Amino acid sequence: MAPTGAKSGQGKKGLLERLDAGEVVIGDGGFVFALEKRGYVKAGPWTPEAAVENPEAVRQLHREFLRAGARGVSQTPSYLSCKSQSEVKGIFRKQLDVFIKKNVDFLIAEYFEHVEEAVWAVEVLKESGKPVAATLCIGTEGDLSGVPPGECAVRLAKAGASVVGVNCHFDPMTCVATVKLMKEGLVAANVKAHLMTQPLAYHTPDCGKQGFIDLPEFPFALEPRIVSRWDIHKYARAAYDLGVRYIGGCCGFEPYHTRAIAEELAPERRFLPPGSEKHGSWGSGLDMHTKPWVRARARRDYWENLKPASGRPYCPSMSKPDAWGVTKGHAELMQQKEATTEQQLKELFSKQSFKSH
Amino acid sequence: MAPTGAKSGQGKKGLLERLDAGEVVIGDGGFVFALEKRGYVKAGPWTPEAAVENPEAVRQLHREFLRAGARGVSQTPSYLSCKSQSEVKGIFRKQLDVFIKKNVDFLIAEYFEHVEEAVWAVEVLKESGKPVAATLCIGTEGDLSGVPPGECAVRLAKAGASVVGVNCHFDPMTCVATVKLMKEGLVAANVKAHLMTQPLAYHTPDCGKQGFIDLPEFPFALEPRIVSRWDIHKYARAAYDLGVRYIGGCCGFEPYHTRAIAEELAPERRFLPPGSEKHGSWGSGLDMHTKPWVRARARRDYWENLKPASGRPYCPSMSKPDAWGVTKGHAELMQQKEATTEQQLKELFSKQSFKSH
Amino acid sequence: MAPTGAKSGQGKKGLLERLDAGEVVIGDGGFVFALEKRGYVKAGPWTPEAAVENPEAVRQLHREFLRAGARGVSQTPSYLSCKSQSEVKGIFRKQLDVFIKKNVDFLIAEYFEHVEEAVWAVEVLKESGKPVAATLCIGTEGDLSGVPPGECAVRLAKAGASVVGVNCHFDPMTCVATVKLMKEGLVAANVKAHLMTQPLAYHTPDCGKQGFIDLPEFPFALEPRIVSRWDIHKYARAAYDLGVRYIGGCCGFEPYHTRAIAEELAPERRFLPPGSEKHGSWGSGLDMHTKPWVRARARRDYWENLKPASGRPYCPSMSKPDAWGVTKGHAELMQQKEATTEQQLKELFSKQSFKSH
Amino acid sequence: MAPTGAKSGQGKKGLLERLDAGEVVIGDGGFVFALEKRGYVKAGPWTPEAAVENPEAVRQLHREFLRAGARGVSQTPSYLSCKSQSEVKGIFRKQLDVFIKKNVDFLIAEYFEHVEEAVWAVEVLKESGKPVAATLCIGTEGDLSGVPPGECAVRLAKAGASVVGVNCHFDPMTCVATVKLMKEGLVAANVKAHLMTQPLAYHTPDCGKQGFIDLPEFPFALEPRIVSRWDIHKYARAAYDLGVRYIGGCCGFEPYHTRAIAEELAPERRFLPPGSEKHGSWGSGLDMHTKPWVRARARRDYWENLKPASGRPYCPSMSKPDAWGVTKGHAELMQQKEATTEQQLKELFSKQSFKSH
Repeated sequence: MAPTGAKSGQGKKGLLERLDAGEVVIGDGGFVFALEKRGYVKAGPWTPEAAVENPEAVRQLHREFLRAGARGVSQTPSYLSCKSQSEVKGIFRKQLDVFIKKNVDFLIAEYFEHVEEAVWAVEVLKESGKPVAATLCIGTEGDLSGVPPGECAVRLAKAGASVVGVNCHFDPMTCVATVKLMKEGLVAANVKAHLMTQPLAYHTPDCGKQGFIDLPEFPFALEPRIVSRWDIHKYARAAYDLGVRYIGGCCGFEPYHTRAIAEELAPERRFLPPGSEKHGSWGSGLDMHTKPWVRARARRDYWENLKPASGRPYCPSMSKPDAWGVTKGHAELMQQKEATTEQQLKELFSKQSFKSH
Repeated sequence: MAPTGAKSGQGKKGLLERLDAGEVVIGDGGFVFALEKRGYVKAGPWTPEAAVENPEAVRQLHREFLRAGARGVSQTPSYLSCKSQSEVKGIFRKQLDVFIKKNVDFLIAEYFEHVEEAVWAVEVLKESGKPVAATLCIGTEGDLSGVPPGECAVRLAKAGASVVGVNCHFDPMTCVATVKLMKEGLVAANVKAHLMTQPLAYHTPDCGKQGFIDLPEFPFALEPRIVSRWDIHKYARAAYDLGVRYIGGCCGFEPYHTRAIAEELAPERRFLPPGSEKHGSWGSGLDMHTKPWVRARARRDYWENLKPASGRPYCPSMSKPDAWGVTKGHAELMQQKEATTEQQLKELFSKQSFKSH
Repeated sequence: MAPTGAKSGQGKKGLLERLDAGEVVIGDGGFVFALEKRGYVKAGPWTPEAAVENPEAVRQLHREFLRAGARGVSQTPSYLSCKSQSEVKGIFRKQLDVFIKKNVDFLIAEYFEHVEEAVWAVEVLKESGKPVAATLCIGTEGDLSGVPPGECAVRLAKAGASVVGVNCHFDPMTCVATVKLMKEGLVAANVKAHLMTQPLAYHTPDCGKQGFIDLPEFPFALEPRIVSRWDIHKYARAAYDLGVRYIGGCCGFEPYHTRAIAEELAPERRFLPPGSEKHGSWGSGLDMHTKPWVRARARRDYWENLKPASGRPYCPSMSKPDAWGVTKGHAELMQQKEATTEQQLKELFSKQSFKSH
Repeated sequence: MAPTGAKSGQGKKGLLERLDAGEVVIGDGGFVFALEKRGYVKAGPWTPEAAVENPEAVRQLHREFLRAGARGVSQTPSYLSCKSQSEVKGIFRKQLDVFIKKNVDFLIAEYFEHVEEAVWAVEVLKESGKPVAATLCIGTEGDLSGVPPGECAVRLAKAGASVVGVNCHFDPMTCVATVKLMKEGLVAANVKAHLMTQPLAYHTPDCGKQGFIDLPEFPFALEPRIVSRWDIHKYARAAYDLGVRYIGGCCGFEPYHTRAIAEELAPERRFLPPGSEKHGSWGSGLDMHTKPWVRARARRDYWENLKPASGRPYCPSMSKPDAWGVTKGHAELMQQKEATTEQQLKELFSKQSFKSH
């Protein structure tokens, strides 16, 4: 879990004021995956020590996402499985303390596979008096305990989350489909909450219930699955049309993906992000190319309808995910994860106290 | 063409000393493509004004490539078609002046589609008294005038290039195959030169003679073609085994690709790049993952043999390149390119004089 | 609809006696598609005039299916949409008369998209006093009126069908999944019926609710979708394990597909079909091949695990079906179909009276 | 090798008269592969005992190919590797005797991997005084001894073959490309011969020098590679445009493929084959379909441009062929083949003396 302290932008309005006013808030992208590719984070533990060890690299990535139009900050996911509700909440409270000191605008509880745990996190975060957003890393089949998305959304909203949705684990259109089910659940239960999506930037039509981690390509051969900026246009439009107003990304998102959200929604938001100075809408910058057949690509319907080839004729289109559904022994594995994470956190904090960014 | 001034590293030895001593020199990656994704360069013109407008962003990208083990600097490609040899050489000389003032170690003439022009560039660069490397953006079929790779290499070496090879336009294994033909040509002609490769980080088995620009996915839907770090391992090994000692990358290369070259050749070079602190060799960092089937991926043969899926069942594996071979009117199109480029250069230099990095 | 008169084999036992005794009955394959490829049936009308015009060709195809282990005979599908129940039943009765004169063992009502119509057909066929089997051409989503498979099965069984299941329109594993839902419906309603599957021999994971007719490849470019004998082994085993005992095929099935059903179920049936004289189980006949790497393919796990390539790198894996769900004007279109079919039937019967085969 | 006695049709003109007059002769399809699927031939040995054991089945297949427009008969391939030229020729002579007694029109020596052996066969067949056609099962790289296609063609023609070309082992367009090289060789050497192609009905872009036998899918999982009738249209046109006038097929060809050759070349031949009664040109029969989107497929450009999906998202587009180029021990393996074949022939002839068909 990642109760994340986030600043909702340079403006004076807070997140909820903005959402209540009908604004579109664009979330940022996938920090740990981007930093791994830049050489600052290790796949496996995925711990965010880069913020301490190489703050300039992290700062630069933030700058790029901000140029792309992102507001708000989300952070490294970590998920801790514990024995009792009070123990778990104790851990959440410890993490919360760090953020509260920074006087953040709002808090996000994200990357939960079980709605029960997410509810506990929301309850803790609410103690801060700040607005709370909560996202699960689930697909249309629901959480790992079998709770369907609609019910998950209702439970999170009732626990106090002002914004509910999904992040990570599934591709953009799957996330939109999942949030659609969430919305239907909220409407049916007559419960109000804003909606939020932060999908992967990878195509994952072949995922099982547990998401992309079980795909054989995770995490070092996901390249052929990377979505294009045009895939993001479709996602941003679909999310907007569904009523989602906090629209961002997770692992795999690079600044140009985030920029594509901002460009697709520029008519609604009535401005382009700074990064669009360097990006002709729908490929229009190609009209200056020397080759006439490349100039002919400087138009929307070309990119919208292109079915891009992989250049990999020896590779399939889809994979069978590795065995999921191992629920037995799950708790045990969680203990290992917890141990690992605590040790890593210790190392991190022994070097330097956590700094906001 | 891009007569590029490059510094061969922090050490005291120059490029040729290092190559003559049998060292492996690792070239860096694709600056303009990476900067486009980060929001600082515009696709179409692809001009490198980021170095002026956002020097910190460029500096950060350099840092990342250096962490990955890259030495030397390559730059934006530009190709100018002109009327006479003396005119062309005049333009080369103007560009050369900038680099000479910076007291660079060596110069690279790169991204030429016609060997004749590259020969002219080499002749100009040689006037500086610096070592010169020369690379063509050609595949196994040879340059656009029909000169086969072997003959191209001989002509470049005879013109004074100490290092010859290919850059851009084709994927890693195609570049190795092309340099193999170059080597065979040099051996047959009994001419000596070091070898160099700077391929795309995209799979392009379906390219025609003119390379990836004609692929329908260029430049905004190349994602499914992005090579993985494991593809780079194979490339680095194949290039090394062929005798190539200047091994780098071009468009599409991100720092983690460059790191993969350095990791593959660590036994020969006897050191790992700084970025490998954050990267377990062959995925070994996954041995700490909570799920046993993900831990099982922490081994070389898993990644070496994986055929990664695209997650795109509605897309093909290969594309037909758009019409190439339009040689008529080619000169004319070049004039347009020249115009465009000069204008852009003017804008750039009016802002600020060019700074080394 | 095709109320088909079928003879259940050379033996003396009738279909129901065999099924009640727990025997496996192997249905035959796809006559019209096979005859179209052999040059005797026209795609589009798909009328079975071959039985009149070229009886030897039809007889030979029957011989081949019988060698493969098929028992029983199914026939050309035709589906007539009419105004009232009594009109529709009148048409069924006219068709039934032909079969009754031939003293068939049992009757199959097959290829219905709406369960209501199938129920009417079953009611008419029951008047003959013969056992009746009924199959719908539906997938897991149910019939075109939205009735789910479980309910369809219950209604057919209650109307008097002793055997219920699916035929045509979907691939083998989809048909097994649909019959699984039918079985669950029967169990829940405490209604008894034998189960039956006659799937396509084409992979159709991308079908919508209306099946393979809407796929862009229908009917003249389905080749890349043709299932292998090994796909049929998996299908036969899955169907058997589900409790299906009438296991056959529909469009696309060739005699070697039917033989594969018989071979997979040979342990249970305790005999091999005659055609297996010419077929080593699981490719064992390859042990005589001259090349050692081909001999190495003479084993079950090789073929069971092979992911066969298409040899078509410019083609995708899946297609978007053409617009389905056009329910408006549906009745109108049906009238056209009816007209066409009546005219064709007239031509057929003017040539020669219908002969059994 | 298969010195095949073939009758060139019901007409009175012989093969050479027809070819010399500029007629198009349409060869038939793949008998053993088709008979294997119909249950009469065993994959592995591939011996043609069906002609003895089930003559009606073979007769029916011939009927179907004749309806499709085929003239002439080709037969089971067999390739015998022996010690000396005189030994090999002795075996050819024994086979020849059978055909001579039948008073065939012409003889085809086909399925040779080494041109030297094919030359020997041609020399023997010429002794009969009949016209001789000779085809190699080679691709554009030439025969297994490294003789390029152009030289192969010249040697066969000089040995006395009136018709030269390729059969089996490669897909239609590869065969056309190979015969193009043969033609260029003949022209360069100023040697005259008619041209002939009998390709596979499987897409094999991934084949090595030794053809489809080395593909992992051979012979029991080739389904996804089966060419459509539209692929055959392209092939027939390309072959015709190259000047090939004996245009047929080999393994995988079904009667509808052969019909497609005849339909594509109907304008030149000025008649349609009998089987076209049951086939609307370019899918025109679909104009009677009930669904408007299927009726919309009743046109040439739809089928000509369709990229058919495989329905197999877990499978790749291309395969790596199994190790070829094992030239050591090759002779030894051939001896095994010879033994096998002789024994099988004995069994065959003990049953019944070989009958023409």
